[in-house]
Amino acid sequence: MRFTSERRFDDGVLEREFTLGEIPGILWTPASSPTPASSPTPAPTPTPTPLILLGHPGGLRRMYPRLAARARRSAADGFAAVTVELPGSGDRPRLPALEQARADLHRTLKSGEPVGDEIIDALVLPLVEKAVPEWRDSLDAVLSLPGLGGPVGYSGGVISIGTRLAVVEPRISAAVLFAGSFVPRAMFEEARQVTIPLHVLLQWDDEGNDRQSSLDLFDAFGSKEKTLNANMGGHAGVPESAGDAAARFFTRHLR
Amino acid sequence: MRFTSERRFDDGVLEREFTLGEIPGILWTPASSPTPASSPTPAPTPTPTPLILLGHPGGLRRMYPRLAARARRSAADGFAAVTVELPGSGDRPRLPALEQARADLHRTLKSGEPVGDEIIDALVLPLVEKAVPEWRDSLDAVLSLPGLGGPVGYSGGVISIGTRLAVVEPRISAAVLFAGSFVPRAMFEEARQVTIPLHVLLQWDDEGNDRQSSLDLFDAFGSKEKTLNANMGGHAGVPESAGDAAARFFTRHLR
Repeated sequence: MRFTSERRFDDGVLEREFTLGEIPGILWTPASSPTPASSPTPAPTPTPTPLILLGHPGGLRRMYPRLAARARRSAADGFAAVTVELPGSGDRPRLPALEQARADLHRTLKSGEPVGDEIIDALVLPLVEKAVPEWRDSLDAVLSLPGLGGPVGYSGGVISIGTRLAVVEPRISAAVLFAGSFVPRAMFEEARQVTIPLHVLLQWDDEGNDRQSSLDLFDAFGSKEKTLNANMGGHAGVPESAGDAAARFFTRHLR
Repeated sequence: MRFTSERRFDDGVLEREFTLGEIPGILWTPASSPTPASSPTPAPTPTPTPLILLGHPGGLRRMYPRLAARARRSAADGFAAVTVELPGSGDRPRLPALEQARADLHRTLKSGEPVGDEIIDALVLPLVEKAVPEWRDSLDAVLSLPGLGGPVGYSGGVISIGTRLAVVEPRISAAVLFAGSFVPRAMFEEARQVTIPLHVLLQWDDEGNDRQSSLDLFDAFGSKEKTLNANMGGHAGVPESAGDAAARFFTRHLR
């Protein structure tokens, strides 16, 4: 892990860009590890700062404003946050198969035909296969930094990546998932294996999203503790109150 | 409106039982009307306390512990709360048609057959017709008391009563609805006429509830601002975090 730039915001949050091998990423850390409010005296050793993995649909530069806003909000709650570029997105080399699947998807959407399982599988499954080990490597790297070592949450992005991570990565102890992308049939079976607490955001009037598929996926999750928070406002219009609810979910589960 | 008993809790909340004609009810008022936090100096006249109508499935005595807990929680947020007995429930005279519908329902549930529209209509529609004018009368009575006059919310209980109230009672400016009871087909059309902000609670694993009907009803509501908050825990197991989210909804909309 090699840090390539560093800046500090007015709120004390430190933002550091890094590369992990070929993969660019960004790490945000709060001004200081907060002392638990219930503690009458300062703790003898600082509490490790909990970490949130910030998911996104790919394209770090394009997504930067929203990612930075989410990270600084998380920092205000005492969490560090990290994100890495997805395979085939942003400054990373294109993946021909993924490009082909994207072209197939756009052509199908334009024609008004239903998006078939083959396209969804080709669009999502290879991405999950490639991205999940990279996010786990990033987790190794970030958790080896001083002061970072608390519980880990995953938030947002491609819901199939979040689902796979929730199944295979035991260090992730809670996840906020955004039900806003195509879900391959194979992921429903994986969803049954998820047991960590989940907070699932769904934009009810997201015209580009298959609402029934999202409800079926929520139903499939094996977690005993799961919340569906559905709102109006279209794909990108998650209301502030829903962001607040997601933040409180992490505060309940990562502290 | 005639007060019949009065007691004050440790937290300063005043609980008063009353009758409105033949109808028993309970009113809870917070220790004092809070001064808005943004006000630099005390307001010249006290701000009227906002009021929440506490819905329930009928049977005030049986429901009292949960109603009192909800009311005291609301009082802590600066709200008064009032509830009245439903027609045909608790100490009020039985309604033979309603008793018949309840008997039909229990027999059908016991037989394992699906509950038909006729039973649901007989169970719910006359109750809505009778209860809604009574709740509006209660609102008249309570809002005429000194210090009470702020915005009004409706919370919980029979969702068809809440839906009708949201359509016909302009003083109600926000509602928390509990999607946990049978919904007559006629109510879906009324739901489209609802325009106030809604926060709908659904227990996802409520075995006695028709989940698809609840989702259809949520979809039908005409409100631009509506949230579905679905959780695990069975019919009566609404988690504390969902209660908190509902309380914050009222704080956002009744202040």
